Amino acid sequence: MKKILNSPDSYVDQALAGMVLAHPAAYRQAGTKGRVIARRYTKEVGKVGIASGGGFGHLPLFAGYVGTGLLDSCAVGDVFAGPSLDDVEQALRVANLGAGILCVIGNYGGDKMVFGMAAEALEAEGVEIETVVVADDVASAPPENAVTRRGVAGVVLAFKIAGAAAESSRSLRDTAAVTRKALESCRSIGVALSSCTVPKAGKPTFELEDDAIEMGMGIHGEQGVWRGALRSADDLADEMLDRLQADCPLQGGDRVAVLCNSLGATPLDELYILYRHLAGRLASMEVEIAFPLMGHYATSMEMAGASLTVMKLDDELASLLQAPARCPHWKDLQCPE
Amino acid sequence: MKKILNSPDSYVDQALAGMVLAHPAAYRQAGTKGRVIARRYTKEVGKVGIASGGGFGHLPLFAGYVGTGLLDSCAVGDVFAGPSLDDVEQALRVANLGAGILCVIGNYGGDKMVFGMAAEALEAEGVEIETVVVADDVASAPPENAVTRRGVAGVVLAFKIAGAAAESSRSLRDTAAVTRKALESCRSIGVALSSCTVPKAGKPTFELEDDAIEMGMGIHGEQGVWRGALRSADDLADEMLDRLQADCPLQGGDRVAVLCNSLGATPLDELYILYRHLAGRLASMEVEIAFPLMGHYATSMEMAGASLTVMKLDDELASLLQAPARCPHWKDLQCPE
Repeated sequence: MKKILNSPDSYVDQALAGMVLAHPAAYRQAGTKGRVIARRYTKEVGKVGIASGGGFGHLPLFAGYVGTGLLDSCAVGDVFAGPSLDDVEQALRVANLGAGILCVIGNYGGDKMVFGMAAEALEAEGVEIETVVVADDVASAPPENAVTRRGVAGVVLAFKIAGAAAESSRSLRDTAAVTRKALESCRSIGVALSSCTVPKAGKPTFELEDDAIEMGMGIHGEQGVWRGALRSADDLADEMLDRLQADCPLQGGDRVAVLCNSLGATPLDELYILYRHLAGRLASMEVEIAFPLMGHYATSMEMAGASLTVMKLDDELASLLQAPARCPHWKDLQCPE
Repeated sequence: MKKILNSPDSYVDQALAGMVLAHPAAYRQAGTKGRVIARRYTKEVGKVGIASGGGFGHLPLFAGYVGTGLLDSCAVGDVFAGPSLDDVEQALRVANLGAGILCVIGNYGGDKMVFGMAAEALEAEGVEIETVVVADDVASAPPENAVTRRGVAGVVLAFKIAGAAAESSRSLRDTAAVTRKALESCRSIGVALSSCTVPKAGKPTFELEDDAIEMGMGIHGEQGVWRGALRSADDLADEMLDRLQADCPLQGGDRVAVLCNSLGATPLDELYILYRHLAGRLASMEVEIAFPLMGHYATSMEMAGASLTVMKLDDELASLLQAPARCPHWKDLQCPE
């Protein structure tokens, strides 16, 4: 295992400590062991709190997206392992700003269980809580079992929508509703070119032959829809877009957000090569890309590969995505002058 | 070679096309073959133009940093190969906004030659041009040969200083002078954990044994100062900081910018683990980190490893680094609320 670390046991805690040291104006650590990341300053008493949590190893997801117009708090587990109940409960307490809490989490059994239990504890004290579960990975189950699908990079867009809605003083019910609406037409799929290594395991999660890739692999190395020879970037882009469209068709006049995400080792160069073909396909269909995001958003440490997320937008969703957000890992790629 | 591409020959051009398609409000392509990236909108007629250029494969460096408060134009070569004279001349013409042009480039022979020739052509037409050459890599030559050192991630900080100075209406002479001042106390060093593969070569630039790393390797795989077994993150951080300090000592009361940069495959997790120890060392020396940057700034495609850049700051330099910039790849990590 060739990684810059001190020991597998200290990997998560030292990385979180470094993240907070590097961005002292943005983050603080809470929870008994510092495994809750919270906003350094929260002035918006009275707004809906947005809380999340998940395994580590996906930075900037999950904890990196704590910030204004994004998350108020995030509970952090071990690498590829969900957060503890104590930390999730603490994350909810931090996010309790007096107008209820919206939990936005990926569709993983352990995460749902601890968020459910923590929510019950706070609800018993009179705090209103809603939970939105992101299940955007079309490769992980067919449409008839869509509720079992994994949550992948679509979580990032859900954070942005929920955070912007809460920041604009919407109620808990409205914030949850608009986030659910956004996810109804949000789909993702990934392709892995290599594995990654969980520090405590010390060896790659799986092996991919020198010439093999896996379409549809999950961000923890969950099995995909096929394993086979590497194809051209354009062929990969076509297959990924076709699979998303088979599940959630696009038509002329639609507006979409597109998130072209590196799983870790894949450089911007390759994302842009993928995007070039996608943009051409969507333009020929007269689908407008109103919100393109390119880069490292939901990673699997040093895994090589990319994921594609497409979300259909109406005026309300487009406006929430474009609303300002402040966070060390949120880049405004629109760059209006 | 396992990369998302269509062909090695189209790698650079398709990636640049995708970059411009993804950020249409920020970039446009110029030059006979689209190998010049320019700002989509430039309203600041009368300001000093900031131009750069270099090989491809380092995104966001070089061309990604075209934007307000950064570069006005950038000429792009092939992977790890400098831009053509024609494109550099075109980049200078684009950056000519009526108040002279500052070229900020890395210390590579080919780049210096074509920028020198292009500058002569424009100077013959009466355009004032200054050139600042970045040579921040302490591993590439001893102090007595510092003028031969390679330019690495310090180039990013030089772009930011020069761009902010130009944006604040300084003269060409002042913009060049403050950029040179910044570079006087800017030093970098990198450590590589793996090679990368130039698409047209089709195989890794070099081989590193499974347990070996190379301290001081250049961003194109140039030989470093030692090759040996992987060490702990804290030991790597100590050695990197010690080598920078041996060249440009820090003392209590100093303020610095710190850029902890992934060479590609190395995830944020590992950068934060490195940074945690660096921040502790600097705090114990009573050196203030006034400007921390963490992430992918100057990469070598999918190379694993990291570089550390430290720049001493005075009030003027701190203010120029903190000035707003708008570019798809510039993140404001300060996040004041």
